[in-house]
Amino acid sequence: MKLYTYQRNSAGERVRIALGLKGLAYEYVSVPGLAEGEYRRINPQGLMPALELDNGQVIAQSGAILAFLEERFPEPPLLPADPVLRAQSRSFGLFIAAEMHAVTVSRVRRFVADELGAGPEGEALWLAHWTAEGLARLEAMLAQRSQDFTFCYGETPGWADLHLIPALRNARRFDVALASYERLLAVEGACAEIPAFQAARPEAQPDFISSDLSSRA
Amino acid sequence: MKLYTYQRNSAGERVRIALGLKGLAYEYVSVPGLAEGEYRRINPQGLMPALELDNGQVIAQSGAILAFLEERFPEPPLLPADPVLRAQSRSFGLFIAAEMHAVTVSRVRRFVADELGAGPEGEALWLAHWTAEGLARLEAMLAQRSQDFTFCYGETPGWADLHLIPALRNARRFDVALASYERLLAVEGACAEIPAFQAARPEAQPDFISSDLSSRA
Repeated sequence: MKLYTYQRNSAGERVRIALGLKGLAYEYVSVPGLAEGEYRRINPQGLMPALELDNGQVIAQSGAILAFLEERFPEPPLLPADPVLRAQSRSFGLFIAAEMHAVTVSRVRRFVADELGAGPEGEALWLAHWTAEGLARLEAMLAQRSQDFTFCYGETPGWADLHLIPALRNARRFDVALASYERLLAVEGACAEIPAFQAARPEAQPDFISSDLSSRA
Repeated sequence: MKLYTYQRNSAGERVRIALGLKGLAYEYVSVPGLAEGEYRRINPQGLMPALELDNGQVIAQSGAILAFLEERFPEPPLLPADPVLRAQSRSFGLFIAAEMHAVTVSRVRRFVADELGAGPEGEALWLAHWTAEGLARLEAMLAQRSQDFTFCYGETPGWADLHLIPALRNARRFDVALASYERLLAVEGACAEIPAFQAARPEAQPDFISSDLSSRA
């Protein structure tokens, strides 16, 4: 399999974590290194990541890739066995993907700053608002769990956790204060010990550039 | 089961269609009719829809509700049996949910118009941009199918179609021209014949107000 991604691509990091948790080898393809127009030919959505199967078929959208991996390579599972915990894991992940990440990705931020004319101050207001509001709701979701777990919805890392870690990384990059989200930070601490999470970080990717660490671009 | 939704809630319409396709009865709860704060207590995400099971457990996010229904009530399936068509169906749905709907829902539009100070003109620019760009990519996804189907990814309606229909309704409400998206319109025509799609329309809901038909609010 080939994964089309980029070191700082949050949705790609979710898939990298999943591939690592399932012990699946893959070829890393850095999308910014492709020729102009080539990626859109491979993935008409034009967004990262995309997974190319060995037969050449391509799957776009991290949530669809994760569901494919879970069905094709069920062990170890990313989702809990209990139907309601499964649903809560998916709900937590979708909230991050749709309500936080989709409104703060770079093309949306650029449109806010440039096309709407809100400038860098408007962009900062936008990022702070959706990120802080989103984190508060994620913390509330974990507070409503029927029991405390080491990870979001279980004693092994999975679907919800692999969405949370890149979201917390983005929040730090956007200078959003995290100290009050103690349940989210506890899960982050547990994930930091897991090799699949370590190997999926931007810094561990072949196209990482150290100067990017402090940049929002 | 109880579905917390509202007539014009697009994500809720997806679930209403799914419930109809699977022949499942449910109680319709109109969220604007609830007391202040009550819905946030039921669903800490605060967004519509949410599905309350008969044991009182609540699932938020339409994608998580759809996955729950597909696993709990597998017949008739919403997803194709073929793994790649399943993935493409999910990808198509996620693109609509995250890249189109999440950036054009009313709370995001209000933030654009009011908090960013872009006003009604900025809001109109925003809606037209993300809707038209999104529809063009959806049409390109269908153009890349290995074969033409009556519905998005098969000869029976399902996961991708129930995302598409509310998205086309929103596009019309936002005055986006649709004539060039012939594959999307062909699927829409096929869905219009299906009772589950007819019963899920805003006009068929108990809280429909006829004056809403032409409003963007």
